[in-house]
Amino acid sequence: MTTYKVLFLPDGKEAEVEPGCTLMEAAEKAEVYINSLCGGKGACGKCKVQVKSDGIRADKHSISYLTKEEIQKGFVLACQTKVEEDMEVLVPPESRLEEEQIMMDESVVDYSQPEKVLVPKVTADPMTLFDPIVQKIYLELKIPTLEDNIADIDRITRELRRRTEHQYFDVSLFCLQGLAAKLRDNDWKVTVTISKHANICRILQIEPGDTTENHFGVAVDVGTTTVVAQLVNLKTGAVMGVAGSHNLQAHYGEDVISRIIYACGREKGLNPLHEAVIKNINNLIKTLVEENGIEERDVTAVVAAGNTTMSHLLLALTPCSIRLDPYVPTAKNFPQVWAREVGININRNGVLETVPGVASYVGGDIVAGVLSCGIADRSEMRALIDVGTNGEIAIGNNEWLVCCSASAGPAFEGGGIRCGMRATRGAIEKISIENNEVKYKTIGKAKPRGICGSGLIDCIYELARNRIIDGDGKFNLETGQERFVEYEGEPGYIVAFSKETETGEDLIICESDISNLIRSKGAVFAAIKSLVDYVGLGFEDIETFYVAGGFGNYLDIPRAIGIGLLPDIDPDRIKFVGNSSLMGARMALLSGHALEKTTHIANGMTNIELSTYQPFMDEYVAAMFLPHTDRRLFPSVDY
Amino acid sequence: MTTYKVLFLPDGKEAEVEPGCTLMEAAEKAEVYINSLCGGKGACGKCKVQVKSDGIRADKHSISYLTKEEIQKGFVLACQTKVEEDMEVLVPPESRLEEEQIMMDESVVDYSQPEKVLVPKVTADPMTLFDPIVQKIYLELKIPTLEDNIADIDRITRELRRRTEHQYFDVSLFCLQGLAAKLRDNDWKVTVTISKHANICRILQIEPGDTTENHFGVAVDVGTTTVVAQLVNLKTGAVMGVAGSHNLQAHYGEDVISRIIYACGREKGLNPLHEAVIKNINNLIKTLVEENGIEERDVTAVVAAGNTTMSHLLLALTPCSIRLDPYVPTAKNFPQVWAREVGININRNGVLETVPGVASYVGGDIVAGVLSCGIADRSEMRALIDVGTNGEIAIGNNEWLVCCSASAGPAFEGGGIRCGMRATRGAIEKISIENNEVKYKTIGKAKPRGICGSGLIDCIYELARNRIIDGDGKFNLETGQERFVEYEGEPGYIVAFSKETETGEDLIICESDISNLIRSKGAVFAAIKSLVDYVGLGFEDIETFYVAGGFGNYLDIPRAIGIGLLPDIDPDRIKFVGNSSLMGARMALLSGHALEKTTHIANGMTNIELSTYQPFMDEYVAAMFLPHTDRRLFPSVDY
Repeated sequence: MTTYKVLFLPDGKEAEVEPGCTLMEAAEKAEVYINSLCGGKGACGKCKVQVKSDGIRADKHSISYLTKEEIQKGFVLACQTKVEEDMEVLVPPESRLEEEQIMMDESVVDYSQPEKVLVPKVTADPMTLFDPIVQKIYLELKIPTLEDNIADIDRITRELRRRTEHQYFDVSLFCLQGLAAKLRDNDWKVTVTISKHANICRILQIEPGDTTENHFGVAVDVGTTTVVAQLVNLKTGAVMGVAGSHNLQAHYGEDVISRIIYACGREKGLNPLHEAVIKNINNLIKTLVEENGIEERDVTAVVAAGNTTMSHLLLALTPCSIRLDPYVPTAKNFPQVWAREVGININRNGVLETVPGVASYVGGDIVAGVLSCGIADRSEMRALIDVGTNGEIAIGNNEWLVCCSASAGPAFEGGGIRCGMRATRGAIEKISIENNEVKYKTIGKAKPRGICGSGLIDCIYELARNRIIDGDGKFNLETGQERFVEYEGEPGYIVAFSKETETGEDLIICESDISNLIRSKGAVFAAIKSLVDYVGLGFEDIETFYVAGGFGNYLDIPRAIGIGLLPDIDPDRIKFVGNSSLMGARMALLSGHALEKTTHIANGMTNIELSTYQPFMDEYVAAMFLPHTDRRLFPSVDY
Repeated sequence: MTTYKVLFLPDGKEAEVEPGCTLMEAAEKAEVYINSLCGGKGACGKCKVQVKSDGIRADKHSISYLTKEEIQKGFVLACQTKVEEDMEVLVPPESRLEEEQIMMDESVVDYSQPEKVLVPKVTADPMTLFDPIVQKIYLELKIPTLEDNIADIDRITRELRRRTEHQYFDVSLFCLQGLAAKLRDNDWKVTVTISKHANICRILQIEPGDTTENHFGVAVDVGTTTVVAQLVNLKTGAVMGVAGSHNLQAHYGEDVISRIIYACGREKGLNPLHEAVIKNINNLIKTLVEENGIEERDVTAVVAAGNTTMSHLLLALTPCSIRLDPYVPTAKNFPQVWAREVGININRNGVLETVPGVASYVGGDIVAGVLSCGIADRSEMRALIDVGTNGEIAIGNNEWLVCCSASAGPAFEGGGIRCGMRATRGAIEKISIENNEVKYKTIGKAKPRGICGSGLIDCIYELARNRIIDGDGKFNLETGQERFVEYEGEPGYIVAFSKETETGEDLIICESDISNLIRSKGAVFAAIKSLVDYVGLGFEDIETFYVAGGFGNYLDIPRAIGIGLLPDIDPDRIKFVGNSSLMGARMALLSGHALEKTTHIANGMTNIELSTYQPFMDEYVAAMFLPHTDRRLFPSVDY
């Protein structure tokens, strides 16, 4: 069969593909990663590439996403363009899924330790008891005699019973095969690796000699957008390193829904999504072990936390029913599996634990977050707000927990906003406006390329405070004439002039972008308000609000209150915790008690289905204003 | 490389082998099974074959096992003869491991049912509660709604919780993968297969629709000599069929010790022994499923009972340390494993349970026997005597159990006795002698080829009763002149004249054979006596003696007492139970409670190591006489 070569520039990477394959697919094959918010449906215009061939032109459908100049220069949408000849394709920076500055470090929660050893070895708090879910125990066994000639494996479990709290050990056949020689050839000195899951203690491997020094685990936050992994020393609890990358599933759709549609809309659609996230995790593990001079076989445990769809894709479970009424996942609690069963490259007897979820739209990431914030540990009521494409809220204490999820849209992660981008190099992360003068700060001090979540919050707040926009998000066109423009048929405001930006074009926020952000913040606030009302409380009853999410490296809490995203309470009672899912996964890795607690949290949390809950609808409509249609809810907001 | 063809007659089976390969190995390759008591060391002379090639002659070493006539006719030992040209080889009947009439049906123990449905479905006795270790449960699930949208697997376990006594279910990833579609495509009607092991309930598979009619299990007695399997309907408890075959490991040695030496004396020596028994089991399962018109995938459970070495070889565990002081096996309790892990061809999610043993020389076969005889169920003291190459004795009740094992030699299975053979066609199984006239009965009413265990017991008894031999086993040469002969330099007695036999040669029992039998019976009796003494009892305190073993189809109990093999008590208190190991394996298959009880029996049984127990030595010496040196122990014996 004829094949064509596609060369991607400036990478210089090439793929050989069959005719009819899209440029997006060719790019993936060449390991060039192109943006795709809509999952390849030609509906977002984020995958623009420049084709260096005269014969290829943008199709009719794609033209609506391209400027006349772009069309002339040979730009097309990669997902809509088929390969019918050898081609050279230039991928511009804005269409590229780059290694971004990924939210890897969780902020410091009040009770945790600021040092790298986050979970101290001995503490009175069972929450933080150092008791890794996989442990290595070095045994110097007594040599058998006629008076003491119990079976080899019983000699091991007898000693383990003395050294652990377990009585019963589940032994795989693999551990028994060859055991006799292993003991006798090594002077009866072996290291036993055990794991715990739901009160079952399993012997994973028996190694000759003392290998307790080589014992590591990996905690993974499997986010829809990014996958972050931490390497942890399971002997000491020390965090050895952290690495993050884009979720490679982005090629099949930017959000959860479009990925489910991809997985379920075609034969074996699940496979590429499953393989993508496994590749992510394997790449991160490879990076981490190489950086630390250890081997993959020294890693015996992985704990992963992700939303319910991510967890399903990780374990190769079909996610189809998650998005269909009545929103049923295959599983909420996941079995402990051999890491190799799903293709994760660690020790061949290593295990993978997946943090359980609550419902189709409240997953293990929230459960891990609730764990890491200690919400289920104390009698005081506290809340976790995770702002992402879905805004998820959990409220409760050591007696009860409720949660809900609202579709907030990807606005705060930079999606659906023309000038929006993720918190990566060149993103404006802070903005202030005084006297129509805009001051901003970009990540990496680079020329601005767009605005990330924290910058967008600042931007809306500053526009409203300066009365450049009204409460409904419409521009007061009589103010600030210099920065007002008409852009694509609607009013816009220039945040950064063309001479300042990397692209050489004005960075403009339009009315429709502001409208998107108001919808997003409205959905999140309505969800918080509905849930607080649902449990019969007021905001004042909640001791602390923890806020997690991919806004950027920080969140300006007073401004987040100022736009009506977060409730108007003392800002000191609101704490930005960053990646609470990763921290929860690490806690579950370092403490069997914490892992067990994730099951209690998941099983004990009541999910309120907002899509059928009328008060939420009313709250949502009421919140579609800056800061809110009911000003009494935001007394401290001064614009 | 050059290869040679070896044609085996009268089978007409051919093997192509490399130069230097032995005829024994070539025969195995051609699937012609030749006797080998010594494990191919040229030490038993049981593998005589006739070579139809002029160039091949018996080597110097082999000549001692061959008569001059045999040498002239081209007889050689198959294990000592190398293939150096194309050959034709005739395998005479006496050198052949035939499909024998294998001890497949256990005798009826007092409390069991004589019908095929041995374990009634409902009974007050927990011992016989019908509760198979693998069960199929057909579920018609409620269709999810928004009010009831728990995860798919939770919908299944919720229903299982209602239908079983289990609360927690261990689910494999395999069962979750594809589950969503399986439920939705089949109207929420599925059959769940669950298994139980040590209080863990595992979901093995989830099938569409109602498959509860297709549910079978296999019980296997893995004997050193023979492997016997029973197919059982796990829905009804009915025994569907039984099949037996020689243990193919016989090619590597006739007894446990020679097989251990084979496995441990060379690189990868374990593999052929493991593969041989797996081949045995797979062949038996294939036969059984074909006979019953079912599929291998309808079989979801196998329970195997065997001595400790057989269990190790079954699971591919190295048996080396079993035979070395201090006699330590790798394991006494064996994990539930996937049948496919060891190569057993049943349902790909089917499991294998191996009945636990007590010590290196008291294995799962005895534990299964104790289970099947109900010894651990009642307050009355009872004993099980399993007479094989090792004689194993267990004594006890529902409060305590002791056991021991004594090397008895293979005499009662026909080994080490020149005229001895297994209980197969042509074996003399009953003998009586009156006025120097010998009457006998052969299996299959064929011309006699040899004498099996039950016939040997009769023979010795009759020789002693007729005073043809004395108490020390020596012939009274002044009696019965017609039948006395000198054979291979020692006195012998013709049991069947040449004109009566299949081979056309006299069937002779010699003084050394009698001496072997006296040693064997002495070892068994000494073990019984030592163990009874050890626990401070007399024979009269033991309500019932169950006798198991491969003597033949029956055992003449008064004559077994008469030669001093069994204690001299009321013969009605001694019951021949045949293959009690197979019966125990089937009970463990049909009742989770019974399987659990095997662990209690194994763990609760005290093993008395006779090899270092002086009173046994004394008893052994005292028992080397017919019926015993202490006549007071055998008051009813009248010769």
